Amino acid sequence: MTEMRPFKRLLSREAAMGIIAANIQRIDRTESIPLEEAQYRVLAEDAVADFDVPPFDRSAMDGYTAKAEDTYGASTFHPKRLRLVGVQHAGDLFQAELKNGECVQVATGSPVPRGSDAVVMVENTKSSGGEVEVHQPVYPGANISPRGEDIKRGDVVVRGGEYLTPGKVGALAALGMKAALVYVKPTVAVISTGSEVRPLGEELGAGEIYDINSYTLTSIIQAHGCVPERLGIVPDEPEAIRMALIEGAKRDLVVLSGGSSVGTRDLLLDAVEELGKVLFHGLHVKPGKPTLFGVVEGKPVFGMPGNPTSCLSNAYLFLIPALRIAAGLPPHEPGQVKARMASRMVASSGREQFITVRLEGGSAHPVFKKSGAITSMTHADGYIVVPVDVDVIEEGEEVTVTLFG
Amino acid sequence: MTEMRPFKRLLSREAAMGIIAANIQRIDRTESIPLEEAQYRVLAEDAVADFDVPPFDRSAMDGYTAKAEDTYGASTFHPKRLRLVGVQHAGDLFQAELKNGECVQVATGSPVPRGSDAVVMVENTKSSGGEVEVHQPVYPGANISPRGEDIKRGDVVVRGGEYLTPGKVGALAALGMKAALVYVKPTVAVISTGSEVRPLGEELGAGEIYDINSYTLTSIIQAHGCVPERLGIVPDEPEAIRMALIEGAKRDLVVLSGGSSVGTRDLLLDAVEELGKVLFHGLHVKPGKPTLFGVVEGKPVFGMPGNPTSCLSNAYLFLIPALRIAAGLPPHEPGQVKARMASRMVASSGREQFITVRLEGGSAHPVFKKSGAITSMTHADGYIVVPVDVDVIEEGEEVTVTLFG
Repeated sequence: MTEMRPFKRLLSREAAMGIIAANIQRIDRTESIPLEEAQYRVLAEDAVADFDVPPFDRSAMDGYTAKAEDTYGASTFHPKRLRLVGVQHAGDLFQAELKNGECVQVATGSPVPRGSDAVVMVENTKSSGGEVEVHQPVYPGANISPRGEDIKRGDVVVRGGEYLTPGKVGALAALGMKAALVYVKPTVAVISTGSEVRPLGEELGAGEIYDINSYTLTSIIQAHGCVPERLGIVPDEPEAIRMALIEGAKRDLVVLSGGSSVGTRDLLLDAVEELGKVLFHGLHVKPGKPTLFGVVEGKPVFGMPGNPTSCLSNAYLFLIPALRIAAGLPPHEPGQVKARMASRMVASSGREQFITVRLEGGSAHPVFKKSGAITSMTHADGYIVVPVDVDVIEEGEEVTVTLFG
Repeated sequence: MTEMRPFKRLLSREAAMGIIAANIQRIDRTESIPLEEAQYRVLAEDAVADFDVPPFDRSAMDGYTAKAEDTYGASTFHPKRLRLVGVQHAGDLFQAELKNGECVQVATGSPVPRGSDAVVMVENTKSSGGEVEVHQPVYPGANISPRGEDIKRGDVVVRGGEYLTPGKVGALAALGMKAALVYVKPTVAVISTGSEVRPLGEELGAGEIYDINSYTLTSIIQAHGCVPERLGIVPDEPEAIRMALIEGAKRDLVVLSGGSSVGTRDLLLDAVEELGKVLFHGLHVKPGKPTLFGVVEGKPVFGMPGNPTSCLSNAYLFLIPALRIAAGLPPHEPGQVKARMASRMVASSGREQFITVRLEGGSAHPVFKKSGAITSMTHADGYIVVPVDVDVIEEGEEVTVTLFG
């Protein structure tokens, strides 16, 4: 008959996170991809400018480019008058050298013709026919961005290892890069264990439940820069679990979720101990006590709780940071909002506790039912963290809600 | 010669957002997709349970299921002793009816055998051989989740229109749904205008610049639930712009970014007026004054500034909310952090001002150079908003930084 081994010493969240961070590295394989697919990837080499940006002196305003000295003393009542000798049209640039008493119409970004050294904003002018009245003087250099002001040839514009936000993708486009060398997305084996766990679409027999965890885990893995590979459902048999671990370890990370049967967890514990090393087992966190972390064939292995709510909650806490380290992404900064607790909450588990809440008009309503309840995740907008040493949150007390999604 | 029309009346951000929201609707086409691809999509019909979850009375704890009355009076020094008559194994359920004086080993999630009405947590027991000592009494129903406690047959578990976070994907999996009916991602035409704008990879001629905006816009569009369709670069010619608008309006939304040539903006303004309706033109926001919004053939059209920084900044402010309305996504809640201003900032533009900042050890360093500088977006971690009526932010003042990415 199977022996149940109760947890002996439970690890704090911080200690667990420290162990995870020390045992996961950025995956350093790279690939070249078209720039239009590069957003939210991680650049794998420095992007160096091989020309100046702007590549020419350009106007920083809509207006008229002129010799600054021709505007000195201008005012609304005593405007200076300039002769409009051209328009900077793309593909039809003003080629001549601008002379005293002349101006050329420019828009923001237009090249500034030779001979001119300032731009008068359109708001400070009045144009009629071939003449432009200037109502305010400008100094030399006014409203002009000199060549190379933004980026100088040889500048590193985006460094290898940087996360390609839309602004950084734009910087690569400014350099004319059609493709970007990025780190590949780490592959993550997703394995559900438990002889009572059935694939979606099949009929459920007595005592059976659907495979929920591989879907929530797949969602999380895709959202945080990694590629899930679903290896299916593995029964509660030592050999099957060993085989799944060995197959899983061909990927960069392995995430198993435990079945709920007696002994499943211990089977995983034994298999990881046999094939590699268990780095922790059992967390001082509610929900999610039965979480395991180890290494098999050099690959990090997460054993998540079988209970879907605990599995997902621990994925938010531990798996997301791990995935992001492997993918080279910056730490996750989920949205947070302040809210008032809608009702008194007792949270005296003696563990750090994560309570899912629904937000409604500035109030946080706990949606936690029992730790088995998938709906406690489904109807939640986010969670609050109750430290070990806090037992009660009063109705109306301000709490910080970390948003899901 | 082209006339430049200065902006007359500038719209506030709130007024502009109101006009956008009133003129964009969720795209209601649907498609069925495998559940493993459904995360961060929007469900298009109610998901109704056709069985109870849990489908059986199950244990909420690891331990032993028994008749509660057999545990009354138990204590550490005077334990009650029960005979272990079975283990709930997936695929090997305990079929008999449990009798007085008996117990069955269960794990969290295991079905509870007939005849038992409570679960004693493993922590409150001691097992030796075929006997289990119970150290604490339990009441009837203790640590049992009755059938249907979580979800009852006929319950709507996820409503049509809800955003499929990992927790909601899990709920659909709990119902055994292999596929989900979701709203299609709206298509968005991305058009760059400007005869001076060159595709990436080509040589730049005099006065020419690379197409930056279509890449930053594509990144934003993909990140917010829509599908960009790049229609290329259109020269500053009325007919070309009209044709591009008509082609673009075959998609759900159209986003153009203006070139920097004199007159480009007015060409777009004229084309939208001719083919549809301009709803606003000119914003009281810095950067990003020359933003246009209108409707062509019933499709919302955004005319973004040609300046890459202004284009991206206005995409964060106006395009993201619009994309999310069209996609049916909840409003964007970007992360925010508090920081101290690293240096005194003068922001006396008389407009609401968005200042990009880099975060370093709790300090916010302005990275804004000139509004043309792509690097002011590239090196920024986020932005602060300076209201119209604030001219100066002092060094050390606390500011709220809204994070990019």
